[in-house]
Amino acid sequence: MQACLLRSRNCIVGETEAGYQVTRGLLDEYTSLRILAVDCFISCESCPEAKGLAFEEIPIDILSGEQFKPGYAAVNAERVMPTLIHGGHSVFQSLAIIEYLDDIQPSPRLIPEDAKERAYARSLGLMTIADAHPLVTPRVRNHLAKMFGADAKAIEAWGKHWTTEGLATYERLLARRAPAPFALGTDPGLADICIAGQVVSAHFLKLELSAFPMVSRLADRCFEMPAFAISHPFEQPGFKTASAH
Amino acid sequence: MQACLLRSRNCIVGETEAGYQVTRGLLDEYTSLRILAVDCFISCESCPEAKGLAFEEIPIDILSGEQFKPGYAAVNAERVMPTLIHGGHSVFQSLAIIEYLDDIQPSPRLIPEDAKERAYARSLGLMTIADAHPLVTPRVRNHLAKMFGADAKAIEAWGKHWTTEGLATYERLLARRAPAPFALGTDPGLADICIAGQVVSAHFLKLELSAFPMVSRLADRCFEMPAFAISHPFEQPGFKTASAH
Repeated sequence: MQACLLRSRNCIVGETEAGYQVTRGLLDEYTSLRILAVDCFISCESCPEAKGLAFEEIPIDILSGEQFKPGYAAVNAERVMPTLIHGGHSVFQSLAIIEYLDDIQPSPRLIPEDAKERAYARSLGLMTIADAHPLVTPRVRNHLAKMFGADAKAIEAWGKHWTTEGLATYERLLARRAPAPFALGTDPGLADICIAGQVVSAHFLKLELSAFPMVSRLADRCFEMPAFAISHPFEQPGFKTASAH
Repeated sequence: MQACLLRSRNCIVGETEAGYQVTRGLLDEYTSLRILAVDCFISCESCPEAKGLAFEEIPIDILSGEQFKPGYAAVNAERVMPTLIHGGHSVFQSLAIIEYLDDIQPSPRLIPEDAKERAYARSLGLMTIADAHPLVTPRVRNHLAKMFGADAKAIEAWGKHWTTEGLATYERLLARRAPAPFALGTDPGLADICIAGQVVSAHFLKLELSAFPMVSRLADRCFEMPAFAISHPFEQPGFKTASAH
């Protein structure tokens, strides 16, 4: 069965749209988490069934408004990224995509099997998904500029504030239950993907991570793995192309 | 096994904290969704096992900063609402609580069994959980006031903008797949809880719903049910008490 993941094209540098140069890289931070999940899903050698899922990535240029064209709006009524199309169905919202992948192919698991552990993994993941990340999306930055006249510096400060809040919360939680070596135990999963995503936001914003040693070590451990490393937005073709100009 | 749900005390009117009178009611909008879920869970006559779960509700006064005291911070490192304590474990983040309830007691289901339907339910739910609601929380409103000097009117406009965006997205989606009679079919669940939650936000902000007829009808259908009706923030003791003063 053919699967497509529609994601935003990574474009980090843009001189023409004042106000967004600094934080524009965050556009793809969240999307990369999904790519990461899909990478985990389709690249695992121990899951032969998973290899039956052909996977095509389709970049959508959200800076030029491609998501508002009828072609994309037809598959995602919210006109946001990403969308996973599988078996003719659109799955939108990042966590729904990860949960769907775990539901149709439980191995390797991104969410553990035990109910309490599942709850902990989702609790950790949702701190990025439902608290920190929604506040730094392009549409929010655009609206801050429109409504409050926020300039690039103010938008950067806004992003730093919420990203730091997220990192601090994760640090407090990891101090209570230390990664061993990943957040839930021996294998990386949803929680690690989301914690690494917070660190990607910090990378974009050039935040100092020394106040968050446990978070930082966990992210380092993640990015040592190919599935995480190749999914870092800085490693995406769109980012490299933009950086070269 | 004893279960506790720690939720924010509903306090809708406050003269002393300028800037938040109008939208303060939103404090409990999301929390009420959780109460709703728990109500669905423990009140179902057809689930005798569910009755074994004694349930105590503990209000936390987030306006006086009770969530920042060590007692609460010990159970929820993010210091936000709500937290479900079950069997000595804290489950935080609203969706994680709903998923946990479905995991430990699959009947009545709040999330359907079929993988594609589960994905659709989560996609719909996450539009409130990960897109619309995070933007109107007290901490965001506080930060808008602090960083941009947003007054009550500006904060109300901000809330109306994002709540309307959410309603419009839901309307587009329900137009493609009509409720029958609930979003996923015969029984209410996660998607309906979240769509009703968006409508609760609209109630607080006194938004006109005529542009969203399908959303509005679905919410009416939900609030005809006791589990939804008694969970509406306007029906909470804290709201009634505050309104009486």
